[in-house]
Amino acid sequence: MPIATRAFAAVAADKPLEPYRFDRRDPGPDDVAIEIKFCGVCHSDLHVAKNDLGGTRYPIVPGHEIAGVVTAVGDNVTRFKVGDRVGVGCMVDSCRVCEPCRAGEEQYCVPGMTQTYGSADPKGGPVGQTITQGGYSDRITVDQNYVLRIPDSLPLDAAAPLLCAGITTYSPLRHWKVGPGSKVAVVGLGGLGHMAVKLAVAMGAEVTVLSTSDRKKADAERMGAKHFLINSDAQAMKAAGETFDLIINTVSATHEIAGHLQLLAKDGTMVMLGLTTEGLPVFAMPLLWRRRSVAGSLIGGIRETQEMLDFCAAHGIACDIELIAPDQINEAYARMERSDVRYRFVIDMARMAA
Amino acid sequence: MPIATRAFAAVAADKPLEPYRFDRRDPGPDDVAIEIKFCGVCHSDLHVAKNDLGGTRYPIVPGHEIAGVVTAVGDNVTRFKVGDRVGVGCMVDSCRVCEPCRAGEEQYCVPGMTQTYGSADPKGGPVGQTITQGGYSDRITVDQNYVLRIPDSLPLDAAAPLLCAGITTYSPLRHWKVGPGSKVAVVGLGGLGHMAVKLAVAMGAEVTVLSTSDRKKADAERMGAKHFLINSDAQAMKAAGETFDLIINTVSATHEIAGHLQLLAKDGTMVMLGLTTEGLPVFAMPLLWRRRSVAGSLIGGIRETQEMLDFCAAHGIACDIELIAPDQINEAYARMERSDVRYRFVIDMARMAA
Repeated sequence: MPIATRAFAAVAADKPLEPYRFDRRDPGPDDVAIEIKFCGVCHSDLHVAKNDLGGTRYPIVPGHEIAGVVTAVGDNVTRFKVGDRVGVGCMVDSCRVCEPCRAGEEQYCVPGMTQTYGSADPKGGPVGQTITQGGYSDRITVDQNYVLRIPDSLPLDAAAPLLCAGITTYSPLRHWKVGPGSKVAVVGLGGLGHMAVKLAVAMGAEVTVLSTSDRKKADAERMGAKHFLINSDAQAMKAAGETFDLIINTVSATHEIAGHLQLLAKDGTMVMLGLTTEGLPVFAMPLLWRRRSVAGSLIGGIRETQEMLDFCAAHGIACDIELIAPDQINEAYARMERSDVRYRFVIDMARMAA
Repeated sequence: MPIATRAFAAVAADKPLEPYRFDRRDPGPDDVAIEIKFCGVCHSDLHVAKNDLGGTRYPIVPGHEIAGVVTAVGDNVTRFKVGDRVGVGCMVDSCRVCEPCRAGEEQYCVPGMTQTYGSADPKGGPVGQTITQGGYSDRITVDQNYVLRIPDSLPLDAAAPLLCAGITTYSPLRHWKVGPGSKVAVVGLGGLGHMAVKLAVAMGAEVTVLSTSDRKKADAERMGAKHFLINSDAQAMKAAGETFDLIINTVSATHEIAGHLQLLAKDGTMVMLGLTTEGLPVFAMPLLWRRRSVAGSLIGGIRETQEMLDFCAAHGIACDIELIAPDQINEAYARMERSDVRYRFVIDMARMAA
């Protein structure tokens, strides 16, 4: 029997999100039915709700930082049982046979992963719908292979944003081999940035935060950053030149980022994590002169996401969050557009109106 | 006794190069005096002669693709003797104590390498001058540690451009671990590009050339390229999407290059080798979506340059050249600006007017 689901959906680019009712599919043999307890609010949600990148199909229920509890499992499900604390991130399926999928990097699935919201859904998705619908809702049904286990020591609310903000920063830190002795800069102390700081510090790196003002300096230091730079301070920026092995760039605005390349040491990499709609003007000279790179990185695979959750549990790391009720989502979006959040809004589904 | 030297120099950004006489220093204890037989003509020479990047001090003798014969050596010189066939590339000194210098990557010297022309010269350089002067000249005196040995099997004229065009392409092919099974694209079949093709083929890669027209298709195939793409052919470009592990981008023009990122496979890198004066607009999406990178690479260190020369000798590789007399340099520059050269002009110093 389909699962009645209460949600908030965007219905048009220029309208506020509003209450929305639909049915999730009953769990098939490989599915896990989940009662969503918390869902983080990611900047990508806002981009899709407002159709910033084009292609949004309405109505759309955003949300891919999902934490909840298993309510039912299909006959083939061996990895989860009713009552388990689980998470769902940015994807709910992928082709499973391409090279990236077989390598556990399903986020780079060649035909394309099935994203948690807004993707055509080969498994059927919500009843009567052609696209997946995300976590601003109280129920979801997901194939067991795309469900994560949330360790007992992590609170469900502060763990929810790990499913995107956590893995999006963890994966490049691992891929570019951050460890003791690494010098890492984090540009922008927001939802992604504050996780990058905590994770890089836990991996043993010396971390510097670059921000537009010193508003968040005390927070950065509390999270373990050793240095704090205001990126309009030309003298400080010059003094920090050729320092960093890795810059984790979480900022979507592009204008001043090209200058940040000068901060990279020889063979250093600046990893872009934010979606930008404009091109970043990259000059060849700073790249050539020290064999620097500008790269991108996209979330992480399922196996690595589990590794990240276990790493966070082992190091006592979670997100700094502000809990909101579902009907506060539009206000939260407005505050996010002003960068007024420390450091992630998380929707508390218990406060969903009946 | 100072060494009388005949040369061609740029005297102003908007004037043709003209004959120029000056004295090279007599070899000191660690120096090798060289009679220059051939000097390749690099696009950087033209940029500096015309002050395209700013900062040119006139008069300037360009040229950093030098091949010649040793005429005298200082008392401490053990690695070379009179009559040896030698080369000099883009640098004639570096600090020797910084981390890159100690690692044999003198091109990334922290205080900065002493470039073959246009650099302040701590060793004294040409007599009575404050900057180094390059290879459009018949004599040069260089510290033995920055002199390369040209293997006997390589003709001096076709070997000269290896000292810049060869090492500039060899180094990134090695750094990004090209070998059998690699898929490499080369954008632009010019002085750098044709060397990139030959070297990558010799390393065992499957090589594709991207060019603006099919003018050079037969040449590309003769050099060993398996595929040839015209980069305005949208259908062919689309079909080649997500294919290449490495793109060697030798083109200085920036406009259409951002679209080339789509050609990279997951974890692929586009390496920029050309100096561009405008920013390259890089969009985050193609980088994020397959964890691609845009990087730069600058020539190579002395040890690696010797390795490249030995590799070329072992594989029977040299540059395709057009020999010119020194007084044809201005005509050669004009042809280079029209991309009308197959594939490198090399000045024959034997044709220097007395």
